[in-house]
Amino acid sequence: MTFDAMWSAIEPIGRDAASGGYRRFAWTRADSDLREWFAGECATRGLDLTVDRAGNQWGWWGDPDAAVRAGRPGVVIGSHLDSVPDGGAFDGPLSVVSALATVDALRNNGFVPARPIGVVNFADEEGARFGVACAGSRIITGQLDADRARGLTDAAGVSMAEALLASGRDPGDLGRDAQTLGRVGTFVELHVEQGRALIDTGDPLAIGTGLWPHGRWRIDFPGEANHAGTTRLADRRDAMIGYAHTVLAARSAAAHRGCLATIGKVSVRPGGVNAIASTVTGWLDARGADQSAVQAAVRDITAVAAEHGATVRQESWTPPTSFDPGLASRLQQILGTDVPLLGTGAGHDAGILAGAGIPTAMLFVRNPTGISHSPAEHAERDDCLAGVQALARVTRELAR
Amino acid sequence: MTFDAMWSAIEPIGRDAASGGYRRFAWTRADSDLREWFAGECATRGLDLTVDRAGNQWGWWGDPDAAVRAGRPGVVIGSHLDSVPDGGAFDGPLSVVSALATVDALRNNGFVPARPIGVVNFADEEGARFGVACAGSRIITGQLDADRARGLTDAAGVSMAEALLASGRDPGDLGRDAQTLGRVGTFVELHVEQGRALIDTGDPLAIGTGLWPHGRWRIDFPGEANHAGTTRLADRRDAMIGYAHTVLAARSAAAHRGCLATIGKVSVRPGGVNAIASTVTGWLDARGADQSAVQAAVRDITAVAAEHGATVRQESWTPPTSFDPGLASRLQQILGTDVPLLGTGAGHDAGILAGAGIPTAMLFVRNPTGISHSPAEHAERDDCLAGVQALARVTRELAR
Repeated sequence: MTFDAMWSAIEPIGRDAASGGYRRFAWTRADSDLREWFAGECATRGLDLTVDRAGNQWGWWGDPDAAVRAGRPGVVIGSHLDSVPDGGAFDGPLSVVSALATVDALRNNGFVPARPIGVVNFADEEGARFGVACAGSRIITGQLDADRARGLTDAAGVSMAEALLASGRDPGDLGRDAQTLGRVGTFVELHVEQGRALIDTGDPLAIGTGLWPHGRWRIDFPGEANHAGTTRLADRRDAMIGYAHTVLAARSAAAHRGCLATIGKVSVRPGGVNAIASTVTGWLDARGADQSAVQAAVRDITAVAAEHGATVRQESWTPPTSFDPGLASRLQQILGTDVPLLGTGAGHDAGILAGAGIPTAMLFVRNPTGISHSPAEHAERDDCLAGVQALARVTRELAR
Repeated sequence: MTFDAMWSAIEPIGRDAASGGYRRFAWTRADSDLREWFAGECATRGLDLTVDRAGNQWGWWGDPDAAVRAGRPGVVIGSHLDSVPDGGAFDGPLSVVSALATVDALRNNGFVPARPIGVVNFADEEGARFGVACAGSRIITGQLDADRARGLTDAAGVSMAEALLASGRDPGDLGRDAQTLGRVGTFVELHVEQGRALIDTGDPLAIGTGLWPHGRWRIDFPGEANHAGTTRLADRRDAMIGYAHTVLAARSAAAHRGCLATIGKVSVRPGGVNAIASTVTGWLDARGADQSAVQAAVRDITAVAAEHGATVRQESWTPPTSFDPGLASRLQQILGTDVPLLGTGAGHDAGILAGAGIPTAMLFVRNPTGISHSPAEHAERDDCLAGVQALARVTRELAR
């Protein structure tokens, strides 16, 4: 299948008619359809499909274990197919489709790799359902404990263990997977750009240098459910008040400390119009180029939350990640020294693998809206095909 | 069935195991089970069941239409069986069970009513699902337009019309129902107290004098979905910020104006931890003894929301309601002049019927926690039985 045909095949899966955005959450029907599609694309190409202990899918061109024994482990390309709520079409899928198109392009040119080439579809990258981003790569690298992962619950109270079971997987499988990681000699993740940097420079592509430190915190504000029409202000313990103060504290701390802090998800109990909130849970996302600034902002914000009796739990923390500088230089040699270098505030499986010591690189494709995690996220077709061409050139050189 | 047996029969219906509270929302399975139970209780007693254009259930002892022709329309007692999210067991059901127990008590004493006695179960009193409280009584009195009612949607986007269809009802039936209202000569609604007034006075019962003015407003805050990790603060349009300012404005306006204002329900799009909110919808509930103070507070609050680009829509407004003073005096004569009089900030179907010109009264039963719309809502069994006895004495006098 061509790039366009693959793009059309997955276009309707998990799309919400009302918002036009995608709801491709881990271990749901939409996710299962995408995983099945990916397995089919691997089968069509004769790639050997393996599924690791976290459910990540790997399609191999060549024998990855023989390569490990020979001391020349494989070159892996790809990303993920899941989405944030009402996400765009490109974040994740552009990379997976480009990786499959790269295999086609290399074969059409008669290329015979000296190192095996793997195409990966990481599970649950966005963490939209269970709250931990990059869950698939974190589990196999041991950065997310298997017991903790199994116990994570979604908004309906379904645990990851239950969701895995419902998808026909054994939750007991979850855990570090050294064999799978050992097969990855190099990982290159192409991704749609998530900011306005390439609009400003006018370039279709960039090479990633690293990821900002970033983390998530769950903040539970206590209250007491009572009738909104009969309870005097003095008798109230309204969880919404502390939440509102903390939302505003997040914005001002980010401005003051020179980083980013956002509360974009909230859950309220009991959630009736005429009921005072007994519990409000907000999720804080904080990032920035400077780790100490991010940490200071989070301290500022959680101090305000604590004044309102809230309990704060860190759900994830990823220190700053620098991709392999030698590998980035090599990509510049391959693609041209005019291709700009770019750091990003977004998290990626590439960051998790880099943190586990695997030489890792990223390629970014220009996003003309500068908007991501939204139906407005976009990449022009020409830029996508330029991305495939760049990924093919890089993969050919690395697998030579 | 005795009071206790009826109480036990409905106790498990719609109860959430985790919270211990009730989720008996209109036109759901739990609601349907309760309606079936009510129909069965009417059948057991030989009460003639009629269902009006809004789906409210009426069980008649005697012929209500013959009584209308004779110029002596019936005495109706009862309330509703639906609940707020994670509501208590008493708000609504205490009245319906007490009304059925009243019929039993009158018959056991050999009473033969000169006017027919009706027991009512109003549909969708709490408005927990579709956002409009007292929907059943508002529809038959014409205070809620049938087209608007049909188009109201729940959190999952299901319209009231669709919900009615799914419950086997014809949404085309909705509308003013003069015949049903004409049968109600007098309405007496018993209810668990929703504040601390009877704890302070030490009385098991009170007679209602009227309802505070109260209303609901839906406030939609606009934003632009984007990535929380890559979008500069200056480039953001984060709907959560305006929402947070408005939550705090509601509390301060209520304190300043001497009334109540609460935001206890919120919905966020897209709702991802790493996505800036593109839309936040908050629902404001405002009430108070003084109508002009409530209106001034709502103006203060919506002005703050408007500064953040929000659109505000009034979902309901109920002016202050005074119950029939002559009827309240008559209840005091029947029950004793030591029974205190009590106004309330809660809304009730009694208020809707009073607004439609029907002589209406309320009886309140002491709530030892002072908490309502919560699993902590309570009434002692002795107080409940005192309520039944009072309701029976009142009904006997009014139907004599």
